[in-house]
Amino acid sequence: MKQSKLFTKTSKTLPKDEVSVNSQLLLKSGFIDKEMAGVYSYLPLGHRVLNKIIGVIREEMNAIGGQEMLLTALQSPAAWQATDRWDDQKMDVWFKTELKNGSTLGLAPTHEEPLTRLMKKFISSYKDLPAFPYQFQTKFRNETRAKSGILRTREFIMKDLYSFCRNQQELDEYYERAKAAYVKIFDRLGLGKITYVTFASGGTFSKFSHEFQTLCEYGEDIIYINEEKNIAINREIFNEEITKEFGLTMADFVEKKAIEVGNIFKLGTKFSDSLELNYVDESGAKQPVIMGSYGIGPGRVMGTIVETCNDEKGIIWPKHIAPYQVHIISLGKDEAIMQESERLYNLLNASNFEVLWDDRLTVNPGAKFADSDLIGCPVRITVSGKNIENKQYEIKNRAGGDAKFVPQDQIISFLTDELK
Amino acid sequence: MKQSKLFTKTSKTLPKDEVSVNSQLLLKSGFIDKEMAGVYSYLPLGHRVLNKIIGVIREEMNAIGGQEMLLTALQSPAAWQATDRWDDQKMDVWFKTELKNGSTLGLAPTHEEPLTRLMKKFISSYKDLPAFPYQFQTKFRNETRAKSGILRTREFIMKDLYSFCRNQQELDEYYERAKAAYVKIFDRLGLGKITYVTFASGGTFSKFSHEFQTLCEYGEDIIYINEEKNIAINREIFNEEITKEFGLTMADFVEKKAIEVGNIFKLGTKFSDSLELNYVDESGAKQPVIMGSYGIGPGRVMGTIVETCNDEKGIIWPKHIAPYQVHIISLGKDEAIMQESERLYNLLNASNFEVLWDDRLTVNPGAKFADSDLIGCPVRITVSGKNIENKQYEIKNRAGGDAKFVPQDQIISFLTDELK
Repeated sequence: MKQSKLFTKTSKTLPKDEVSVNSQLLLKSGFIDKEMAGVYSYLPLGHRVLNKIIGVIREEMNAIGGQEMLLTALQSPAAWQATDRWDDQKMDVWFKTELKNGSTLGLAPTHEEPLTRLMKKFISSYKDLPAFPYQFQTKFRNETRAKSGILRTREFIMKDLYSFCRNQQELDEYYERAKAAYVKIFDRLGLGKITYVTFASGGTFSKFSHEFQTLCEYGEDIIYINEEKNIAINREIFNEEITKEFGLTMADFVEKKAIEVGNIFKLGTKFSDSLELNYVDESGAKQPVIMGSYGIGPGRVMGTIVETCNDEKGIIWPKHIAPYQVHIISLGKDEAIMQESERLYNLLNASNFEVLWDDRLTVNPGAKFADSDLIGCPVRITVSGKNIENKQYEIKNRAGGDAKFVPQDQIISFLTDELK
Repeated sequence: MKQSKLFTKTSKTLPKDEVSVNSQLLLKSGFIDKEMAGVYSYLPLGHRVLNKIIGVIREEMNAIGGQEMLLTALQSPAAWQATDRWDDQKMDVWFKTELKNGSTLGLAPTHEEPLTRLMKKFISSYKDLPAFPYQFQTKFRNETRAKSGILRTREFIMKDLYSFCRNQQELDEYYERAKAAYVKIFDRLGLGKITYVTFASGGTFSKFSHEFQTLCEYGEDIIYINEEKNIAINREIFNEEITKEFGLTMADFVEKKAIEVGNIFKLGTKFSDSLELNYVDESGAKQPVIMGSYGIGPGRVMGTIVETCNDEKGIIWPKHIAPYQVHIISLGKDEAIMQESERLYNLLNASNFEVLWDDRLTVNPGAKFADSDLIGCPVRITVSGKNIENKQYEIKNRAGGDAKFVPQDQIISFLTDELK
């Protein structure tokens, strides 16, 4: 992408009341736009990042048998009334709306009810199980508090997978597979080292659920970690009784702030009982289907990456998530520089690198470097008169380290080592 | 995909009040599910088709300089009040909802207002133009009439691209590029031969807009076509004065029913005037930005394909849009048959064909063939004891023609010719 063609620009001014690091950096760099508090659009650079995160999650969900679908935001009341979650007092994040005939609809904040009802059409026998449908779908939640940028929004894409199993053992096994897939996802997204599988309250059907908590000093959550044993417990259930189960006391844990980037939960028969999702087992007996749910918000993940990967100059994208892998900066507008830049741009594109080329003729070098640091692509290549003379490129990693000079004819192998 | 693992099943029963061919076939085959009238979920097979349609459109939009983004459904009133489209009387398809503090929000039925407002942040000079942002985004429209399956729904993904140009000439040129891209899209989607670029009313800023109308006896629209000159005119503007401009009379046209699968429109300064989207030209003078809009609903396209590509047995997907390219039917459950089927399944997957394998052991051959015809993949390969003996496969095209017998060792080259 030639930067002169990119319709967004970086900016120095921010909407009032933007207090979070993620929204400040993403708004300044032109990755997102603010429609209203808690409602953000994804502009081309932000959309690319969001889609890469979605791509990683999709691959890992498909790898554990997930089948992608797309449910609807608009919801009729019946299924939610059956589980007693239609009332705004019972679920306090509903957005409600009305059809022309006056009947009330809801905008789904989650999808257990409609999916459980839907699965009744396809599940009747043990032969129909297990099933693992999932989606990337836009949820609506009427949040009172919406001051955390894209970490907590009123409209957001969520990956929600639901497991439908024959029995507790099948659920338990799938739950562990999903947990392992989540660990892999956060590793691939560059958050692995600071993301903890965290014990959380399990509800009626299981002692624990698990949250994936990424350490961050601006996180809304508080967790307690024991690094030696790699155990993390969320605040809700952190007490002597629980720590004892791990052979530890509360004093063995350190309090940390964190952002919840994912959670997995054994639902048991909570929804299948209310909505009568049953199957006939091998012996001919009717059994309730055993469910689980597995959520990740790609937008929240993106916000978490920005919160944890930045410096005073801007964002530092992990290499597999960056909007572009390489940012070429043409230092000056001489014909020789522009020609060599274009040659390099075409060469890298042809070698399947993703390249942003700052080809703008009216922007000075200082502003180009500032924009490049703000946008945060992993590798910056400077093309200048002097570098052309020496038949080399000047390379700088956004993550840090000294500039390197790479001979022109070695650029592809250098970038391959650096980025693949 | 092994069919035994696919969580959906075909069905013979339909929800009451489903009268359209597309929803009947898509519900029966398990491609979609009905949440309520005019609101449908996409199940795995349907989701694959929808995504392929989106993929084709995305490629062609990128090819004409489109930059993908994602705006929000939730809308604050200000921009819509500025163009006088907030009032339900002025735009009668609004779904409205409320924040906890009581302020009213809308669910966007289209995105001219928020995008025009957004572009004010990035457009100030002629150097910032032209720009061509687009999105695949879920629109909400409070339709009174919702009886056409996925052709007209209350919630649907729409591809909407908007052009922002310096002057009429730049708009006119882009409009023609977009028109050509649309022609290419419908060709690639298998609808080219029955889709007409149709003259329609142009509004204040242009004599004509253009609709892409696909001939279909169940279509809601009526158009008039002259096949010899390849001219189509929609009912709204079909009169002697208009036909005369093409050197024809009304009698030279034939009336046809059709489905509007896309439309392109020169908006001129309608939105940039109301929302004050201006730029400074080369001479330093302030000018309004000249806009255009370009829409396609991938779900409606999918419904149109089903309406126009089917027979009494089911759907007949065009080869680039089918959920899977090849449907392997194991005829019987002998070990030899299942082993050969699996070998073929693995071979085709390894050769990058998309394969659905009916490996179900408890379904009889008649039901397998009926399901295969209903689901409508382009190529069906039958693996039977007799075929194995003869070292060949039995191939049937869903679109018609006699069965062919292809030697086992020629199957890849045969399918490559057939499907690529």
